[in-house]
Amino acid sequence: MSPFPVLIGGEWRPARDVRGSFHALDPATGAEIPGDYPVSGRGDVEEALGAGNAAALEMAGLPPECAAEFLEDYARGIENRTQEIAAMANRETGLVLDPRLLSVELPRTVLQLRQAAACARERSWCRATIDTKADIRSKLGPLGGPVAVFGPNNFPLAYNSVAGTDFAAAIAAGNPVIAKAHPLHPGTTRLLAEIGHDALLKSCLPRSAVQLLYHLGPDDGFALVSHPLIGATSFTGSRPGGLALKAAADKAGKPIYVETSSVNPVFLLPGALRGRTAALAAELFGSCTLGAGQFCTQPGLIVLRDDDSGRAFFDSLASLFHASGPGQLLGKTVRDGMEAAIEAMTAAGAELAAGGHRIDGPGFRFENTLLRVSGDRFLDNPEPLQQEAFGAISLCVRADSEEQILAVAGALEGNLTGSIYTGMDGFDDGLYARLEPILRTKVGRLLNDKVPTGVTVTPAMVHGGPYPATGHPGFTSVGYPAAMVRFAALHGYDHVRPERLPAELQDKNPTGAMWRMIDGEWTRRDV
Amino acid sequence: MSPFPVLIGGEWRPARDVRGSFHALDPATGAEIPGDYPVSGRGDVEEALGAGNAAALEMAGLPPECAAEFLEDYARGIENRTQEIAAMANRETGLVLDPRLLSVELPRTVLQLRQAAACARERSWCRATIDTKADIRSKLGPLGGPVAVFGPNNFPLAYNSVAGTDFAAAIAAGNPVIAKAHPLHPGTTRLLAEIGHDALLKSCLPRSAVQLLYHLGPDDGFALVSHPLIGATSFTGSRPGGLALKAAADKAGKPIYVETSSVNPVFLLPGALRGRTAALAAELFGSCTLGAGQFCTQPGLIVLRDDDSGRAFFDSLASLFHASGPGQLLGKTVRDGMEAAIEAMTAAGAELAAGGHRIDGPGFRFENTLLRVSGDRFLDNPEPLQQEAFGAISLCVRADSEEQILAVAGALEGNLTGSIYTGMDGFDDGLYARLEPILRTKVGRLLNDKVPTGVTVTPAMVHGGPYPATGHPGFTSVGYPAAMVRFAALHGYDHVRPERLPAELQDKNPTGAMWRMIDGEWTRRDV
Repeated sequence: MSPFPVLIGGEWRPARDVRGSFHALDPATGAEIPGDYPVSGRGDVEEALGAGNAAALEMAGLPPECAAEFLEDYARGIENRTQEIAAMANRETGLVLDPRLLSVELPRTVLQLRQAAACARERSWCRATIDTKADIRSKLGPLGGPVAVFGPNNFPLAYNSVAGTDFAAAIAAGNPVIAKAHPLHPGTTRLLAEIGHDALLKSCLPRSAVQLLYHLGPDDGFALVSHPLIGATSFTGSRPGGLALKAAADKAGKPIYVETSSVNPVFLLPGALRGRTAALAAELFGSCTLGAGQFCTQPGLIVLRDDDSGRAFFDSLASLFHASGPGQLLGKTVRDGMEAAIEAMTAAGAELAAGGHRIDGPGFRFENTLLRVSGDRFLDNPEPLQQEAFGAISLCVRADSEEQILAVAGALEGNLTGSIYTGMDGFDDGLYARLEPILRTKVGRLLNDKVPTGVTVTPAMVHGGPYPATGHPGFTSVGYPAAMVRFAALHGYDHVRPERLPAELQDKNPTGAMWRMIDGEWTRRDV
Repeated sequence: MSPFPVLIGGEWRPARDVRGSFHALDPATGAEIPGDYPVSGRGDVEEALGAGNAAALEMAGLPPECAAEFLEDYARGIENRTQEIAAMANRETGLVLDPRLLSVELPRTVLQLRQAAACARERSWCRATIDTKADIRSKLGPLGGPVAVFGPNNFPLAYNSVAGTDFAAAIAAGNPVIAKAHPLHPGTTRLLAEIGHDALLKSCLPRSAVQLLYHLGPDDGFALVSHPLIGATSFTGSRPGGLALKAAADKAGKPIYVETSSVNPVFLLPGALRGRTAALAAELFGSCTLGAGQFCTQPGLIVLRDDDSGRAFFDSLASLFHASGPGQLLGKTVRDGMEAAIEAMTAAGAELAAGGHRIDGPGFRFENTLLRVSGDRFLDNPEPLQQEAFGAISLCVRADSEEQILAVAGALEGNLTGSIYTGMDGFDDGLYARLEPILRTKVGRLLNDKVPTGVTVTPAMVHGGPYPATGHPGFTSVGYPAAMVRFAALHGYDHVRPERLPAELQDKNPTGAMWRMIDGEWTRRDV
């Protein structure tokens, strides 16, 4: 059987200049799933860039309704084939249908497509700014080149390179997409791309607005993200892979947004634990092991006082880890990564409290794992003890004082989230007031009394954070319109004749409802 | 005489661990200006970072009025010493007092400080976003570390590292600044820093909110911008220097904004020239040679049809260049750079039409220089022909057809600005419609019938652009509040207790006048 075709220049056609082929594995059994997928070579990359660049030029001249209608039609197309998509994703990733692929992730995916479409239609996202006196106007506009989207392994739908949050954001901001599938779920990506391509052909977007490559060797990936014709890149995945792509794009002066690692510290202050150890242990255990811990917001680091309540909480949590069955993993790389992470953490002084071992036999599974370390030990060597261990692995840091809790916070790298649990009686208010300013600058989303897993798609969401969580602390990959601005350039217009201005900057409000900043006031009125 | 002290940790104190010293030259005579300035070593860098980081933590807890009052007091302090500052800047840079330092740049500098202060006070810049249903809120907040500002040679006041646009933006966004003076005007920077420091001591900002180093070796510069304690960096200056700093910061995952080079293409379409060759030649000549061409928006590339009007225009322009006296340069590096640039451009096929030579004798001067090249030649080898030649050097590309004009636009790299001159009679409308989309994605600010020099400080200004003009096309360094968002992190709050939210995100509007996005509406009301 010849490999599946790639989607380039508006056509499904055989990959050219291929470097090899691959197939998906059923992670529950380790068995091959039929279907060969090509590893594209430089020729495919160049052709996709050329077609994508021409599409970018064309899209810049189209009204935003074209992108909005496409995204909405795509969402309907996905809804029409939910069972098929979810079944394929389940087979390729081992993630369960309910409560996950069918009941959570797929609805989120179509919601994202529709929210991005609504923002494109509504146009306020472009932050039109008008100085009537100086006759200078500005707005965000498309990048002038395609956006490369590298999807991760752990969200085959909601972060899929050809249907997920980055895809929707890039299209809604007026850019074509070159999707690079994650090699663990090529079939899911193919199904989505087929639906997307059908929707595209019915839309007024150019035929090359959506392209798909299944896999690339490292050098071809670097060539893609650093090419003169690329607009920008988003990458969600492993730290080494993301940083290598970032280095290539940075050197070429091309924007790249990477989300690569986060341990999502959870601080349990003494007052929070009083009388609530069992309930909080159950809450945290659920968050640590949800989806076998394969979330970017999985709480990998738990910080508490090494006092009676802290030890009681830890024992409760360890019991829950002990009593739980092993998680079904996305694939072999996750399993091997967990093994390596535990080795590195124990070498740095952490002790196993529960789990710690792979499960032999067919498929890829691993015990839910809890480790502990003293605050002293953590502070002696914080770097290896705060490396993301993707999967259900959490490290509990037991601090000997309030000061040491603060010192642990001070030793943290950048993270997507940081949670602080405190008592409701004001007991922890003093410590909170000292801890919050330290943690605030190290995380994108700060939570109180809430686990970090669960990312609501809302304009106020922040799914980003300082390095190494992401490459720039000013952006989010979830939530519209905020996620769209990553894929935009700031376009100034100085003394440009009125009829030549884009509709969003002409005197008349193009929709009557779009928000614009006119002479210092946010308004929906005409100039 | 011992070198001037640096400003670190709130004190003027001798530099430690120094690598050497330097002094300014009077560019009109080449003579030394008395006063030794130190080249700081790693010890000063580390100490400034430590103090700056502590200041960042403290500033994050202060109301924005502290920064606003400081900036306003600083502006008054500068106004009280305008003659002294302008005289020093004149002596160190050779820029004239009027119409420039005293009458234009100094007023712009205090205007910037005041506009940034007003934005800090008004708070809308932080884009508070509130989802009342999900109880998720977000805003832009300070970076958690100091901002390093590297000022350029050509704006000793308005871009000064310790008083200019980036300084004001970073402080107004709630961050301390570590200023790195430009070594061509250390005395001007010292005067400004003294005024700033006095204002700081009277303010409620921490004493280390403003620090100053006069000079750094390359390795110490790289250490500064890539240090774990740095918040972000802005750099305006030469391309090699900027890109080297960018590489260091990028590798460490630290935000850096560089503005390094731009040739600011001006397209003169056939209809624009009909009957207006002399007037347009005078207008463009003024822009090319203003301030001896030492502007980042100097029109270094002029594109026109090689027809009768085009040739007549070119001859007029060449005559003006011929008849003009040599410009006074900022220093030796500019003169030597002009010589090297002309050599590179002629080697690539450009021909000299006017000027081309340094002026011997005391001081640093160079002839205003115009070159020409055919469209064919340009397209054969666009790279060396579009390198920024800092100073009054412009290259005219004479295209043999409309298609070739479009091809030249297509071969351009990223620029700060791009201008299109067209006839008022509609003659050029067809060509404009084809040219504009190509040029739009390659420049930050698009102009019609207007020269690019002259950058108005307004919220709608875009002084940025795609690489290599800057490192990211989504930002501007001029115009508030837009310039401030470069120095901010996106802070999410999820389920955070109401009394623990920052004032901008609490239900009550903290000023009654701040704009916030509440459930999809820009509003000044309370939740």
